[in-house]
Amino acid sequence: MPTTFNPPERTLMGPGPSNLNPRVLAALSRPIIGHLDPAFVGMMDELKGLLRYAFQTENALTFAVSAPGSAGMETCFVNLVEPGDKVIVCRNGVFGGRMIENANRYGANTVVVEDEWGKPVDAQKLEDALKANPDTKVVAFVQAETSTGAESDTKTLTEIAHRHGAIVIVDAVTALGGTPVLVDEWGVDAIYSGSQKCLSCVPGLSPVSFGERAIAKLKARKTPVPSWFLDLNLVLSYWTADGGGKRTYHHTAPVNSLYALHESLVLLQEEGIENSWARHRAQHEKLAAGLERLGLDFVVLAGSRLPQLNAVKVPAGVDEAALRTRLLKDYNLEIGAGLGPLAGKVWRIGLMGYTCRPENVLFCLAALADVLKTAG
Amino acid sequence: MPTTFNPPERTLMGPGPSNLNPRVLAALSRPIIGHLDPAFVGMMDELKGLLRYAFQTENALTFAVSAPGSAGMETCFVNLVEPGDKVIVCRNGVFGGRMIENANRYGANTVVVEDEWGKPVDAQKLEDALKANPDTKVVAFVQAETSTGAESDTKTLTEIAHRHGAIVIVDAVTALGGTPVLVDEWGVDAIYSGSQKCLSCVPGLSPVSFGERAIAKLKARKTPVPSWFLDLNLVLSYWTADGGGKRTYHHTAPVNSLYALHESLVLLQEEGIENSWARHRAQHEKLAAGLERLGLDFVVLAGSRLPQLNAVKVPAGVDEAALRTRLLKDYNLEIGAGLGPLAGKVWRIGLMGYTCRPENVLFCLAALADVLKTAG
Repeated sequence: MPTTFNPPERTLMGPGPSNLNPRVLAALSRPIIGHLDPAFVGMMDELKGLLRYAFQTENALTFAVSAPGSAGMETCFVNLVEPGDKVIVCRNGVFGGRMIENANRYGANTVVVEDEWGKPVDAQKLEDALKANPDTKVVAFVQAETSTGAESDTKTLTEIAHRHGAIVIVDAVTALGGTPVLVDEWGVDAIYSGSQKCLSCVPGLSPVSFGERAIAKLKARKTPVPSWFLDLNLVLSYWTADGGGKRTYHHTAPVNSLYALHESLVLLQEEGIENSWARHRAQHEKLAAGLERLGLDFVVLAGSRLPQLNAVKVPAGVDEAALRTRLLKDYNLEIGAGLGPLAGKVWRIGLMGYTCRPENVLFCLAALADVLKTAG
Repeated sequence: MPTTFNPPERTLMGPGPSNLNPRVLAALSRPIIGHLDPAFVGMMDELKGLLRYAFQTENALTFAVSAPGSAGMETCFVNLVEPGDKVIVCRNGVFGGRMIENANRYGANTVVVEDEWGKPVDAQKLEDALKANPDTKVVAFVQAETSTGAESDTKTLTEIAHRHGAIVIVDAVTALGGTPVLVDEWGVDAIYSGSQKCLSCVPGLSPVSFGERAIAKLKARKTPVPSWFLDLNLVLSYWTADGGGKRTYHHTAPVNSLYALHESLVLLQEEGIENSWARHRAQHEKLAAGLERLGLDFVVLAGSRLPQLNAVKVPAGVDEAALRTRLLKDYNLEIGAGLGPLAGKVWRIGLMGYTCRPENVLFCLAALADVLKTAG
């Protein structure tokens, strides 16, 4: 008969989730109140402001979807893509592939721009694809490819899309809080992230933000949004009645997880988002130097590496799964495996949010050195 | 600048969420581990068994959707309804209406069987509708209508649907754990619930269970499931590799919320589900007697009342919103308002899960007596 589950204590240096600041755990376990309680509504208003800070935007339509990052992706596609819309997806890893799946399921006429895994999205290829497909409505790409650790240039890709009259959908799941995501400065139209990774909140929520062009596309739809749960027209009536406005019940909000997200974002604000970016960069440099000393090669070239997601090649002759199992069992340290064509070939070492601290960098390097000595 | 949010302590006697057992809060704030960690996978296998107990089923496909009950509803409709399918929805409240919305968004040919709000679904009307629509593929109804407190007879409605060759989708959001939900004995094909209400876990997860007929309908689809996030074909590869099987990554599971759901279900198992049903019934009887002494009339006739959701009529001349505000402000007690055509006309008093205890019944009756004395 199952009894209370007591998880082990792990250092989480995979592709997410990351470890939680004790203040986030404390927030999570505060007493539950109703999702229409005035005290809760006040917290939500603050939360929207904090999310705007994280996304560096003034977009009114900035909130947290009540489900994981994958549902944030789906929120963007289900609301902004209509059957027959031409959608260009730039794929340079697993999550670009998932975007294609999303676009197809909503009846898009999808054009795929392929880039090598481990390289950023190629701006010239996007430009060419847009020239060849002048009726493109939406361009979608991943800023921070979690499967490879490559960072793409959202600013440039967005400029190109806009020049050709398309809006952009940007995946910032691994980016947000760890590297600059400047929604307003770059003119991003629709963007989604996750509550874990560099925000170090519990997984299960997906921060999203929509600008005017995206809202205009939503309002101009000829067909109903093919999802009740994710229909922004309905969700909005709950999330966007700022201040005294009356909130309409949509669904029961995940109250305690939202407490935790609020606290994660208070922590981000206390640190200062630029300081958070700098911390991720500095710890990454220490980690990268150490990994190179261990003879491990990065998948991504130096100029395009995400500080928060370090994919390195498994040395020849090393059983990669056995090594990860030893790290987990003997060191309570989690690092990530490769996905898709990189499965078995790479490890993914995360330096995200609360996990991204000097003690963890040193610990991870020391543990890796230990197990590599006897691996084979 | 926002700081840490400290919620007030409330007694939650609305339509949900309910209060959380301290053991559930403690589970929620245990250290996070990876969603592919062997320790987590072991917990998930237990969780599936505990959910089978709650649903009284042996269905292999029993798990928790990583989003609130509304997404559980959507999981049922998006997987089991194909464009052009004839779907009968029996509506006797708000949540039947939401089922219609769902069916329509997936292109169903929807037939609505209307029943009066506050009455259970009429079996004869369903029988007549099925005779008039012999090509019906799916019958959908709400066992426990949260908007009125009426309980419908899932056993009889399922028998009728099966006799006419249709499968059933049942909403058990408010039912599960509070009143009998006998999935196998009644032959229910697809059912969804929520993690809060009578399970008294945090909101944000949706337990679901699918039987053989539902899976056969899913497997026979001619069109892809129009949702990536909720596609059971994909979710399954993560949830159903029992024991040693390899789990495929689908999305980052809401780890800490799943700890909490596990603990809620351990509590249910310790109490015994029949004892939980009896507790809800016994406390309801005390509450109902007290409400009648206060001169408050129920919306639903005695034989069809849900013990966990007590909708009573607002006495003439009483400002219902002002009274609820006083209860919240002066007593930290939340009761619910009416929805839809019952807005402003009823209060909904929940007796769900951990909230359903004698001390809360007495407190609620005493607080109501106090505020009713001076209401007008």
